[in-house]
Amino acid sequence: MRGLIIGRFQPFHLGHLATIKAALEEVDEIVVLIGSAEQSHTLENPFTAGERFQMILNALDDAGITSCMVIPLRDINRYAVWVSHIESMIPPVDVVYSNNPLTVRLFSEKGYDVRKPPMVQREAYSGTEVRKRILSNESWHDLVPRAVVKIIESVDGADRLRELALDEGSES
Amino acid sequence: MRGLIIGRFQPFHLGHLATIKAALEEVDEIVVLIGSAEQSHTLENPFTAGERFQMILNALDDAGITSCMVIPLRDINRYAVWVSHIESMIPPVDVVYSNNPLTVRLFSEKGYDVRKPPMVQREAYSGTEVRKRILSNESWHDLVPRAVVKIIESVDGADRLRELALDEGSES
Amino acid sequence: MRGLIIGRFQPFHLGHLATIKAALEEVDEIVVLIGSAEQSHTLENPFTAGERFQMILNALDDAGITSCMVIPLRDINRYAVWVSHIESMIPPVDVVYSNNPLTVRLFSEKGYDVRKPPMVQREAYSGTEVRKRILSNESWHDLVPRAVVKIIESVDGADRLRELALDEGSES
Amino acid sequence: MRGLIIGRFQPFHLGHLATIKAALEEVDEIVVLIGSAEQSHTLENPFTAGERFQMILNALDDAGITSCMVIPLRDINRYAVWVSHIESMIPPVDVVYSNNPLTVRLFSEKGYDVRKPPMVQREAYSGTEVRKRILSNESWHDLVPRAVVKIIESVDGADRLRELALDEGSES
Amino acid sequence: MRGLIIGRFQPFHLGHLATIKAALEEVDEIVVLIGSAEQSHTLENPFTAGERFQMILNALDDAGITSCMVIPLRDINRYAVWVSHIESMIPPVDVVYSNNPLTVRLFSEKGYDVRKPPMVQREAYSGTEVRKRILSNESWHDLVPRAVVKIIESVDGADRLRELALDEGSES
Amino acid sequence: MRGLIIGRFQPFHLGHLATIKAALEEVDEIVVLIGSAEQSHTLENPFTAGERFQMILNALDDAGITSCMVIPLRDINRYAVWVSHIESMIPPVDVVYSNNPLTVRLFSEKGYDVRKPPMVQREAYSGTEVRKRILSNESWHDLVPRAVVKIIESVDGADRLRELALDEGSES
Repeated sequence: MRGLIIGRFQPFHLGHLATIKAALEEVDEIVVLIGSAEQSHTLENPFTAGERFQMILNALDDAGITSCMVIPLRDINRYAVWVSHIESMIPPVDVVYSNNPLTVRLFSEKGYDVRKPPMVQREAYSGTEVRKRILSNESWHDLVPRAVVKIIESVDGADRLRELALDEGSES
Repeated sequence: MRGLIIGRFQPFHLGHLATIKAALEEVDEIVVLIGSAEQSHTLENPFTAGERFQMILNALDDAGITSCMVIPLRDINRYAVWVSHIESMIPPVDVVYSNNPLTVRLFSEKGYDVRKPPMVQREAYSGTEVRKRILSNESWHDLVPRAVVKIIESVDGADRLRELALDEGSES
Repeated sequence: MRGLIIGRFQPFHLGHLATIKAALEEVDEIVVLIGSAEQSHTLENPFTAGERFQMILNALDDAGITSCMVIPLRDINRYAVWVSHIESMIPPVDVVYSNNPLTVRLFSEKGYDVRKPPMVQREAYSGTEVRKRILSNESWHDLVPRAVVKIIESVDGADRLRELALDEGSES
Repeated sequence: MRGLIIGRFQPFHLGHLATIKAALEEVDEIVVLIGSAEQSHTLENPFTAGERFQMILNALDDAGITSCMVIPLRDINRYAVWVSHIESMIPPVDVVYSNNPLTVRLFSEKGYDVRKPPMVQREAYSGTEVRKRILSNESWHDLVPRAVVKIIESVDGADRLRELALDEGSES
Repeated sequence: MRGLIIGRFQPFHLGHLATIKAALEEVDEIVVLIGSAEQSHTLENPFTAGERFQMILNALDDAGITSCMVIPLRDINRYAVWVSHIESMIPPVDVVYSNNPLTVRLFSEKGYDVRKPPMVQREAYSGTEVRKRILSNESWHDLVPRAVVKIIESVDGADRLRELALDEGSES
Repeated sequence: MRGLIIGRFQPFHLGHLATIKAALEEVDEIVVLIGSAEQSHTLENPFTAGERFQMILNALDDAGITSCMVIPLRDINRYAVWVSHIESMIPPVDVVYSNNPLTVRLFSEKGYDVRKPPMVQREAYSGTEVRKRILSNESWHDLVPRAVVKIIESVDGADRLRELALDEGSES
């Protein structure tokens, strides 16, 4: 059986990893879709799909997980055809794991078996929280896999985020 | 003579119906353009163009109005060519009915006869108000034609809106 | 019951009209989708969606047919989501009438009842033939409804086609 | 040597002109990129690229500056390929002048020599401030070159902005 | 070290498999990019990205190859930014394997190590040849991995291709 | 008075230069629009907009012509709004110079003063001819301004064209 997990992974954190581990108790392999793949260099979406891809790859590798396929997916911004769009791009899946209400709704409307993964420390393990802490120079290393720290550092991610924050007040 | 009425119709309400009736006192037939046709499943645009199309169709049918053409239109988000875009898609119109300042301005700049329909109970008869009431479980049936109630119920529209509201706080 | 007929209608000809008439023996109303609505001013697609819309409108009017909805539809060029795209834009249909193999296949794959309308003099009643005759100044008026002749003349359509033909050899 | 200056120029003001003059002390000619060229008729982007083009053209002409190339550029909204996109559209440049943190970062990441022009009265000489004053009917003529006043008046820009402001509260 | 192989894989054939095997003698893992991912249901591109994905997945699985990442990639049709586009979507690669002159040129211009894999029976092991044989009902099973035969049969691929061939002569 | 000349300039040749010179006898300045700006690295469109821009810039400079504005313009592929699109991007023009029938028609339909520049040795001075000669290694230097030869050589343009020609027979 094959499962589907969709996220923006800005960045990939321990909550994502826990969800994947939990799902792998129920399915044999998992398609990990990197949503909003075309987005990068914004406060909400600081990292490119390539960078996020590598975070996930290395983190799964460190965790000894080999049964995931990672796929970047550009947005189409038309929810009425979104599920069809995804279906046309990936191998068929049997289960969708998501706590996102819109994702839950759209896949349910198409008859999918949608399951809510247990939320692990949701307030801390969230992309929003990680980005906030990076920005405000608080400790964030314990919220993400070790491999993610390395990649964010290698692309100078903290500085990137802080510069993007300056951008808010300026006019492009 | 042919008139043009543009709206998002999220959903089609009694104010829209009143505008159409008033306009039909001046013109023979009306092109009803469903704007933002590609949008759906968001708090601002919960219904698909197909669902909105059917609302209008059935409501006009119930009201015995047969001289309307309903046409869904995808946004192009380039206001400088917006009127040209519309002109290339529909049969020619003589009058544009709108209270929307941007629509008024863009069609006026191109020399159209733009008329402001009388506003009927604008505070209640507005898409924003209807969506707010559906969301907060207040009474909304009296703001829309009977046919619209049926369609919203048949697509489980109230639940859809409430789930989309949950989505605000979550990360996709 | 509602039927669907899809075409580019470049231009609308008597074969199209015959198909609509035949379909109306089986269904109550018909959605007439004008495909490739964004195309115009090319040899294959000389007329704008607006011009084609008016051809159909006037021809149906002359024929006393009132149970058709005409809708222009922009291409999306992604066949895997094409049916979903159409479904999200129009009211639901029960039957699809088409002799186009791709349309037949795509709607059949989604479980639609697809019926092939009888072909009436296909070699003459085809858009390709009409455009060829206009270009080569042969008689073409008897291939299209009277209303279509008028509209093509009013937009100077024969000259447009001939000038577009010159364009083939030149570099833009 | 050739420099690059990117802006939205909504509208072109004296701060922009000062930046160009300062840059021309260091380089021989300047490419002036009009960003968000497809945007117009919104509160943030009231003027078309064509109108902005003419503002810059006339202002530079009045200032006796002849070594600028003005180029409108549509957004692509994919920052990861933004610099490549620009490189493919314009002649090569040696220096980029910008105070915008995102622009600074993206061009720096590609190895460009990015220089921050001195900010001249930034609080007053900003597009936001000019638009605010036009809207609230405060004095704004002294913030922009004389030629810009003329063009804004010729396109009835103040009225346009005020009508667009009305639009905020209404539903399209 | 990581290699990159780009193809449309319409369908995945034994030549593709040989290329992957040869490349894996030089690199540790390979990114297999499915180009033109948005295309399907045409004579040149009969299979969806999802179908092609599954072909590759199963064929690699049967061959005992575990060090490949398969990624569908939509076209952007702007060759000047194509390499940047790919770089932003995938993890970094060290070598590009390609016999396609355009791919070779574009990656070479960006300084990549581009290597030409040995061509194995190019006249037979080509997507064009496989599609031709399917269409003309010649033997084609020996040109593709066993898993690909199964998937093409499960999606009724031969019929799909033949119907699409009919489409050539008809007007959409 | 301001004139408009539109071309793809693949590459800019002596016929283009003659047209500009002839037009400058009638108007004060000229907007030179580089069409299909997003295209490059194909047999029909080998050069990027940036490269073409520089060809024109340097050739005009050598010819002592200072009254031209060069602007790259991406295609929109919707002829019905094409003129509106151009109008929204550039300063207003009084005359359009073109021998291209489609351009002539579209601008004429909008009421522009369209003039046909005298054709100078059209069979030789054409982009098609120049590209053909480069490809087949015939003499082509005498068909283009000296500056264009230099730029094509500096970007290794002949090799690029020849490699792209190989691409015809291969599958991407």
